[in-house]
Amino acid sequence: MVVLKAASPPVPSVNKINNGFPCSNGTIKPLITPSPSSFINLDQGDPEVFRAYWRKKSEECTVVINGEDLMSYLSDTSNVCWFMLPELREAIQRLHRVVGNASAGIDKHIVVGTGSTQLFQAALFALSPSDSPIPINVVAASPYYSEYKDEVEILRSGLYRWGGDAREYDKNEEYIEVVTAPNNPCGSIRRAVANCEGEGKVIHDLAYYWPQYTPVTQQYDHDLMLFTFSKCTGHAGSRIGWAIVKDIEVARKMTRFIQMSSIGVSKESQTRVAKIIGVICDSYEKIGSSLDSDELFFEYSKRKMRERWEKLRAVVDKSNLLSLAKYPKTYCTFTNHTSESYPAFAWMKCKGGIEDCESFMRNLKVFVRGGKRFGVDQKYARVSLLSRDDMFNEFLTRISNITSDRKYNLN
Amino acid sequence: MVVLKAASPPVPSVNKINNGFPCSNGTIKPLITPSPSSFINLDQGDPEVFRAYWRKKSEECTVVINGEDLMSYLSDTSNVCWFMLPELREAIQRLHRVVGNASAGIDKHIVVGTGSTQLFQAALFALSPSDSPIPINVVAASPYYSEYKDEVEILRSGLYRWGGDAREYDKNEEYIEVVTAPNNPCGSIRRAVANCEGEGKVIHDLAYYWPQYTPVTQQYDHDLMLFTFSKCTGHAGSRIGWAIVKDIEVARKMTRFIQMSSIGVSKESQTRVAKIIGVICDSYEKIGSSLDSDELFFEYSKRKMRERWEKLRAVVDKSNLLSLAKYPKTYCTFTNHTSESYPAFAWMKCKGGIEDCESFMRNLKVFVRGGKRFGVDQKYARVSLLSRDDMFNEFLTRISNITSDRKYNLN
Repeated sequence: MVVLKAASPPVPSVNKINNGFPCSNGTIKPLITPSPSSFINLDQGDPEVFRAYWRKKSEECTVVINGEDLMSYLSDTSNVCWFMLPELREAIQRLHRVVGNASAGIDKHIVVGTGSTQLFQAALFALSPSDSPIPINVVAASPYYSEYKDEVEILRSGLYRWGGDAREYDKNEEYIEVVTAPNNPCGSIRRAVANCEGEGKVIHDLAYYWPQYTPVTQQYDHDLMLFTFSKCTGHAGSRIGWAIVKDIEVARKMTRFIQMSSIGVSKESQTRVAKIIGVICDSYEKIGSSLDSDELFFEYSKRKMRERWEKLRAVVDKSNLLSLAKYPKTYCTFTNHTSESYPAFAWMKCKGGIEDCESFMRNLKVFVRGGKRFGVDQKYARVSLLSRDDMFNEFLTRISNITSDRKYNLN
Repeated sequence: MVVLKAASPPVPSVNKINNGFPCSNGTIKPLITPSPSSFINLDQGDPEVFRAYWRKKSEECTVVINGEDLMSYLSDTSNVCWFMLPELREAIQRLHRVVGNASAGIDKHIVVGTGSTQLFQAALFALSPSDSPIPINVVAASPYYSEYKDEVEILRSGLYRWGGDAREYDKNEEYIEVVTAPNNPCGSIRRAVANCEGEGKVIHDLAYYWPQYTPVTQQYDHDLMLFTFSKCTGHAGSRIGWAIVKDIEVARKMTRFIQMSSIGVSKESQTRVAKIIGVICDSYEKIGSSLDSDELFFEYSKRKMRERWEKLRAVVDKSNLLSLAKYPKTYCTFTNHTSESYPAFAWMKCKGGIEDCESFMRNLKVFVRGGKRFGVDQKYARVSLLSRDDMFNEFLTRISNITSDRKYNLN
């Protein structure tokens, strides 16, 4: 029996950044604790912020996988998504019942993917007309998630192509609109906006529609909704996402895509995610007992995000160089409280004549992702708020300093 | 000679077969033990044949994963393949050292994928010219693995397209040849065959180049080699494959594709596969001690495959309707013995006027995969020899009966 140690803490790459993920040039040194001269990587959204919670729950969430377990390609041949473990499907349905953020009942089809990234591509495949001589346009309202465009364009598909900003789309052709709600990068709640004569299909990317990031205002019931475990709990290494799909033919085509792309999805990850979801849901069923509210995952994680946002706003409010959007207070049907949103990313705008927020931050040795990647002005940049505490605190220190030190305003 | 019409196949009471994997029609019942009236699925290559070995080794291969483990997207930012766990890379290198089937030393780059299926597509992406106005042709010598064509064509990529049988390829254009060795479906050892004026790049798919299926005759050292754990040990549910790549730029592009396709590969699967490989390699280091040879995985698995082939040949040899290829006896550098190949699939040819081997088998309620899917005549069909013992034995019973019962030859 081998007990695995926790993975080493993430290593911010200081050198070449390859579209948000590191690409080695062989000279990277692990950065253990940030010092004032260290590079800090807040470009990626690697979710480390909830780690302390999972450390406390580590034993309770343990899975034990024996040599003979989980060997077959097949999981449940009575289900459209034949490679999905039944216990994962049931766990996902239960989680959505507990949180109330999406309708995932027995009238819906769930398709598991290797992260929601794979499911996004499966959805494009499933929604694209197979008999059209021209590719369907894929649009999203700017600022849009930086990876959509590359994911659409990478193979130069004849089925679909990148169509740009949904607000500017005016072709009389079929299209697919991706609606990210809450939005990555800017945290706002979105609806479909493409306004044209063509017929539109919509993919709802709800990666961040969880109580720690935004008040749950309604149980979504869209035709095709994507979720990812990475952002729900922070278990990004498991690469588990799921789609909730109304139309069985769409679910079938998505399953077919994942079959052709990877013949299914890791069963080890599926079984572990089912276990962790079970632990989360179990704890909510104990409410009313003596359970400390920090024992409840979404209470803990919402508190963490709120604390970070409060600290960040306190610093930015004193700054004449940086600004942040305000989010409305809304009633959350899950927590039964009214609160602001506490998005996973800060969508930072530089002021005071600074034209390029990403470069400005890089002068502070902070890697962030510039507005251009999201289809907007370089005055904006996305800053991950999901990093480790020490990284986040060092980031605050650095931006506190610049606001009182005008030399950083030149460049 | 009586010509067997392609009789209308019986309506399967089990699942509809969708390119080799099940697609639900909602009426599937699990098949526990095959009876003479049951359908037997030998179309897919779901590897159940070695299960008894892993049952015995179940405890020794156990992994325990706690709630806090393996959370980050990142694994090793000093490596080109930044999402690959270092212990998996080391385990893969060790396995190839022990078996001697491929050169995977420190001068090579290893890229992990969600099965070799994802890596095949990553390789196509990496080897396709990014600046060419026309897609590069992807060719394979028939009979070729039935899924290559669909995997190449599914997204109608502008980077690459299916170019058909490598032996017939005569364009004066760049091309990619996929060489499957030993070949799926027919088990023969292959070399690149495309013979034309264009410049060719080669992907070597070595999924079955393990001692249980074929004598290891040399340590391959090709530019780009693909392996999958599914066929090495039978752990198909883990979805772990790997590529061994000489050119760092190719490895980098493959990594980039997997990033865009699924932001990495399940860490739970990676850590488990590393553990199981460790158990296999450890046992070989104990040779000379009192270890029973059935304790050694490749000895056990080779014996299993040899037994199945001997039983199958005994039945087929008596048949005037079926035939199988012969494989030469070769010296295996791993076992230090001379033996035949015992491929994972039987490549069956129907005789006696039977024009469609797949339909013929379906009349026996056996699902197999017809030659057309592999680019050749329907007289051929591929029969999986990786099924459970009871399925395999029931298959033998059915083909024994037909050879002695002429009514099956009429229709």
